Amino acid sequence: MEGQIKRIGVLTGGGDCPGLNAVIRAVVKTAIRRYNLEVIGIIDGFYGLVNDIMEPMTEEKVAGILHRGGTILGTTNRDNPFRYAVEKEGQLTFEDRSEQCIENLRRRGIDGLVVIGGDGSLSIGLEFHKKGIPVVGVPKTIDNDLSATDVTFGFDSAVTTATEALDRLHTTAESHHRIMILEVMGRYAGWIALYSGVAGGADVILIPEIPFDLAKVCDHIRARAEKGRKFSIVVIAEGAKEMGGEMVVQKMVAQSHDPVRLGGIGQSIGQKLEMCTGMETRVTVLGHVQRGGSPTAQDRILSTRYGSAAVDAVMEGKFGHMVALRTPKILAVPLQEAVGTAKQVNPDGQIVKAAKSVGISFGD
Amino acid sequence: MEGQIKRIGVLTGGGDCPGLNAVIRAVVKTAIRRYNLEVIGIIDGFYGLVNDIMEPMTEEKVAGILHRGGTILGTTNRDNPFRYAVEKEGQLTFEDRSEQCIENLRRRGIDGLVVIGGDGSLSIGLEFHKKGIPVVGVPKTIDNDLSATDVTFGFDSAVTTATEALDRLHTTAESHHRIMILEVMGRYAGWIALYSGVAGGADVILIPEIPFDLAKVCDHIRARAEKGRKFSIVVIAEGAKEMGGEMVVQKMVAQSHDPVRLGGIGQSIGQKLEMCTGMETRVTVLGHVQRGGSPTAQDRILSTRYGSAAVDAVMEGKFGHMVALRTPKILAVPLQEAVGTAKQVNPDGQIVKAAKSVGISFGD
Amino acid sequence: MEGQIKRIGVLTGGGDCPGLNAVIRAVVKTAIRRYNLEVIGIIDGFYGLVNDIMEPMTEEKVAGILHRGGTILGTTNRDNPFRYAVEKEGQLTFEDRSEQCIENLRRRGIDGLVVIGGDGSLSIGLEFHKKGIPVVGVPKTIDNDLSATDVTFGFDSAVTTATEALDRLHTTAESHHRIMILEVMGRYAGWIALYSGVAGGADVILIPEIPFDLAKVCDHIRARAEKGRKFSIVVIAEGAKEMGGEMVVQKMVAQSHDPVRLGGIGQSIGQKLEMCTGMETRVTVLGHVQRGGSPTAQDRILSTRYGSAAVDAVMEGKFGHMVALRTPKILAVPLQEAVGTAKQVNPDGQIVKAAKSVGISFGD
Amino acid sequence: MEGQIKRIGVLTGGGDCPGLNAVIRAVVKTAIRRYNLEVIGIIDGFYGLVNDIMEPMTEEKVAGILHRGGTILGTTNRDNPFRYAVEKEGQLTFEDRSEQCIENLRRRGIDGLVVIGGDGSLSIGLEFHKKGIPVVGVPKTIDNDLSATDVTFGFDSAVTTATEALDRLHTTAESHHRIMILEVMGRYAGWIALYSGVAGGADVILIPEIPFDLAKVCDHIRARAEKGRKFSIVVIAEGAKEMGGEMVVQKMVAQSHDPVRLGGIGQSIGQKLEMCTGMETRVTVLGHVQRGGSPTAQDRILSTRYGSAAVDAVMEGKFGHMVALRTPKILAVPLQEAVGTAKQVNPDGQIVKAAKSVGISFGD
Repeated sequence: MEGQIKRIGVLTGGGDCPGLNAVIRAVVKTAIRRYNLEVIGIIDGFYGLVNDIMEPMTEEKVAGILHRGGTILGTTNRDNPFRYAVEKEGQLTFEDRSEQCIENLRRRGIDGLVVIGGDGSLSIGLEFHKKGIPVVGVPKTIDNDLSATDVTFGFDSAVTTATEALDRLHTTAESHHRIMILEVMGRYAGWIALYSGVAGGADVILIPEIPFDLAKVCDHIRARAEKGRKFSIVVIAEGAKEMGGEMVVQKMVAQSHDPVRLGGIGQSIGQKLEMCTGMETRVTVLGHVQRGGSPTAQDRILSTRYGSAAVDAVMEGKFGHMVALRTPKILAVPLQEAVGTAKQVNPDGQIVKAAKSVGISFGD
Repeated sequence: MEGQIKRIGVLTGGGDCPGLNAVIRAVVKTAIRRYNLEVIGIIDGFYGLVNDIMEPMTEEKVAGILHRGGTILGTTNRDNPFRYAVEKEGQLTFEDRSEQCIENLRRRGIDGLVVIGGDGSLSIGLEFHKKGIPVVGVPKTIDNDLSATDVTFGFDSAVTTATEALDRLHTTAESHHRIMILEVMGRYAGWIALYSGVAGGADVILIPEIPFDLAKVCDHIRARAEKGRKFSIVVIAEGAKEMGGEMVVQKMVAQSHDPVRLGGIGQSIGQKLEMCTGMETRVTVLGHVQRGGSPTAQDRILSTRYGSAAVDAVMEGKFGHMVALRTPKILAVPLQEAVGTAKQVNPDGQIVKAAKSVGISFGD
Repeated sequence: MEGQIKRIGVLTGGGDCPGLNAVIRAVVKTAIRRYNLEVIGIIDGFYGLVNDIMEPMTEEKVAGILHRGGTILGTTNRDNPFRYAVEKEGQLTFEDRSEQCIENLRRRGIDGLVVIGGDGSLSIGLEFHKKGIPVVGVPKTIDNDLSATDVTFGFDSAVTTATEALDRLHTTAESHHRIMILEVMGRYAGWIALYSGVAGGADVILIPEIPFDLAKVCDHIRARAEKGRKFSIVVIAEGAKEMGGEMVVQKMVAQSHDPVRLGGIGQSIGQKLEMCTGMETRVTVLGHVQRGGSPTAQDRILSTRYGSAAVDAVMEGKFGHMVALRTPKILAVPLQEAVGTAKQVNPDGQIVKAAKSVGISFGD
Repeated sequence: MEGQIKRIGVLTGGGDCPGLNAVIRAVVKTAIRRYNLEVIGIIDGFYGLVNDIMEPMTEEKVAGILHRGGTILGTTNRDNPFRYAVEKEGQLTFEDRSEQCIENLRRRGIDGLVVIGGDGSLSIGLEFHKKGIPVVGVPKTIDNDLSATDVTFGFDSAVTTATEALDRLHTTAESHHRIMILEVMGRYAGWIALYSGVAGGADVILIPEIPFDLAKVCDHIRARAEKGRKFSIVVIAEGAKEMGGEMVVQKMVAQSHDPVRLGGIGQSIGQKLEMCTGMETRVTVLGHVQRGGSPTAQDRILSTRYGSAAVDAVMEGKFGHMVALRTPKILAVPLQEAVGTAKQVNPDGQIVKAAKSVGISFGD
């Protein structure tokens, strides 16, 4: 099999994520140096695949990008070839353009396709695999909510960014005897909130997996104040849910998906906490700052390993698979297992237990 | 005169600011080591002065705080002894408690008072000076809008934090072909927006001093897109003003002062830009992250110089003065000159001109 | 069993390591909050155990230390109670003071001892365990060379510091067409060099586990220059070995252990590379910068989990054990398995293979 | 005059320095956008000028380089066209190639030359100016030892890097009760040592401008230890001088200029301090890490202003001048005034006085 592969394609799909360039670099270098392949870069994710916007990749093109955020290939998080938005006579309709993609790949002689993406992009990759395209996936998401891998690349960088913000808020909270709220990403899973909250010394962490009781949060903050700790740091995942109040909060979260709208849940909880504690409260919404910037050392290593292993997987014919970290090894696991279900924080797991042991409240 | 001073007090007033601890440390060390004085720390700013909450400072207490954000003395940005809020029979009334402060200082034998604060705190300091209290000021504000000094401490740190956020947004904007908006502090002066915008490679900077025309901002972003730069970074000071539309924007800004309310102007402009350019837009509101965290090297040096010079000024009897940087020297200047008028960005000055030369639009 | 434990001790031994304070904090908080124990801090590692220098720990004492480097308990990397250096009549002799330690622990009513340390300190802990002291270990070393755990705390921080240095050297190497050498810690294992080298985009990585041939290193650098990459970044672990030249290099390394002597191997290889390539070469020896500073987010989380789990292990009576990360779980493993053999880089493992795939030479 | 200038050249000379790319970017953008000029980039400094290695610059080429260390134009710190090293029949001789440079500039129609460099490169620039070449200089050096400007770009970044190293060493020094020595750049001027020492909370700073008495340094460290501060941080500029011992130390410094030789003065003083205090001592030599990496926000702003003002100066015909910061303005000052004499730290100036006030010893 190995001998037959001559040319592979690579694309990045979905939201921006620190480490994308490091993966691209490793794919290109491994393909050229180890296997003597040609590599075609597909521009702007599946949009480029549909519209045949591609260019040959060289070692020169990936020089110096290891530490850079973003993706030199570009990405979109809208375009799905199987349900491709087309404007016709002023109407937006959806068409299946997957055959066009397959045709583009065939015409260019691409024998293997590396899809770097999260749940959405990898699901599209799986559909292409089922139609006979030799796809290998690389698990990307700052949210870390992909099953089948210990961790996704980009997560450590997002946690680091949020932790730095918490370090900064800490000193200000303490000086002013205030409640400081940091709203971080995480609609369906609270990994960023949990990890940055533990690392940043938060007093309260609110995540989708553990519906919270606002009265308990207030009690916790007041109890701290009575013991002389007259400030509190609260980290809130954008998908956090109030007990018995899911409907209301969900609506708020839905709004916060709207491009420029801000601060659904952080602002809402902030107002309530200010009322029930009588303490001044301030809210920061980190937003896309979490998606950008230079990846951490750990993410650069993981990205390099993923990218390199993805090409190995292509050469071993492991199509329909995704590279995954099963510490300390990188394995190839079926995409089928990886997509469709979000990996969530275990409310009874060790990390939540440790967090509670050091005095963090989850409002439960 | 010098021989008569035995004991000085020090307080921090107003909003949190990186470098406060470095100033406190320098005041305490200089007073003890160079002049053999006693130092009394006044807790929580003017609140502690009114209520006589003070404690003796030692070198031990200021060990290891040079690089730490916040203030070990605590601060509030509400309490004005000359107009002190008191609740009486359920009613909030304002009383003059300045005599009580003076009595507290006299009873404790405090011969000199170092007030570390911004325009508000220094104005209070000036009032006390006029009543005979030997006050020396230290100019603090992340906004850099104090007259009479080249720069305030805390400003470089705030600019650095905002610049780091811009670095992160840059890669994401580029990967996604988006408009990324960063709303930074600055109600009356656009220094943080201007400096971080230039340092962070912004494409548009909107500041209070240069009312903007939204149509010109849209044109600028569209012109970039046509030249192949399909993303734009926009930095907005919270006090930015639309030409001829001040009233509306002002109202929005007013709301954003409300404790937990967020994203007045950033969100508002973001929605308009998305409409007029048709490009996806995302907004980040940095908020109090700008006030916290470890001060930059430059701010630690400036703070150390200010703190040390403030004690020198006390010993030289320069009361009613504020230490100020007139590069390369630290001088003592009358508080009267320093307070009352905000130092604003000169729309025709060199920095704005240089920013325009490298292609930044101010929407004018 | 659990009901009987009332008071535990905690000490930090060996070289400084980012995350020590985070472990101490988690031990103290978990013990007090979850189990209502008393905690005694033993000062300056085993030195304090021998000399009975201890103090009660409170939540107050560990407030605000999560993000701080160093250890509030102090540490030494010399004192072994089983072979304790004593000066007698001008002669240095070694005595067994372990009984004195045991007596100190008994008299103070310490029912469990948490030893935070590397191979040396944990070996001492194991010896105490064999003498009946209820010891639980926490695996600490920036070198990551402890068996039985996926990773030690402090390692990620050291890698991050070295990677930041490489990022800085990169731009300078490129501008000047130079060879830049960074010597990092790692006498017996090359983990820091390997990880930071991959993360920092090194061209050559030299580690103890893969003896290098200097001629091959020169060839690699020259080949790069011929392809237009007129600079190279070389990361060298202090214990790197030249093929067939171990004796000489060993001697050099031995010297570099000498307190203030510097740059054994980095300098030696630098001179040789300059000669064989004709390219200007510069050497940086990071030294103890790698041991200090605020721990990364990942290390703070790991340290918090370790510290909390160590107290759990004490309460579960798992003495003679060490907490260890077996991703994603923290387990207790016998100290016997953990100490004595260094965990080394596998020359044929996945990470080295990935590093070679992206073009890094190990000189083999 | 302005109308006649059509094409300018730009080169970077001397050692690498954070901010070089930011200056280049500002020169190119200002020339193209504001004045509609062509810009020619001269590769590898004066080497490229002699050998006519040049290429046209576009806005595209300088996109995304604002925050990047190094120089996209390359640099050398050896090549002087007026004394150009040539190998002839195995002998190294020096020739004057300045006419060749002038011819290259004329043939390419370059009407103005922006030289970005330190004392050496600007002196060459001045010589060319005297021969009729229209030169404008931009003051670059991490050492900040250029007269005629308040500050050079690159200095703040170098200070920041050294301060970060000190922050890391601090925690380790404290945990281990050690003396930690950091050797930083600065052969003739101690600016980096002074500023980073003040910012990093050093206990001792040794600089060329203040010859030190080792006995006084030992006394200071011992006095600290007696007061319970059992560690000390010592920052040493590579050109620091012992009182009455200049000859010896000078020799050592001279050796440290040798490409790969390391740790002249830091190591030497470390050994002596270890002996006289009996405290463990460790030495770090930061080396070229100080020259690399992303420039600070302040340096990016200053670089942008310098680059833009340099083109303004060209258009105003201010040849033989250098742009300089006279806070808050950028002016053009005669190169004659700027070169030849190093700006040194004033031993009796305010910053040294403030440093002493907070307890820092200079060994005098």
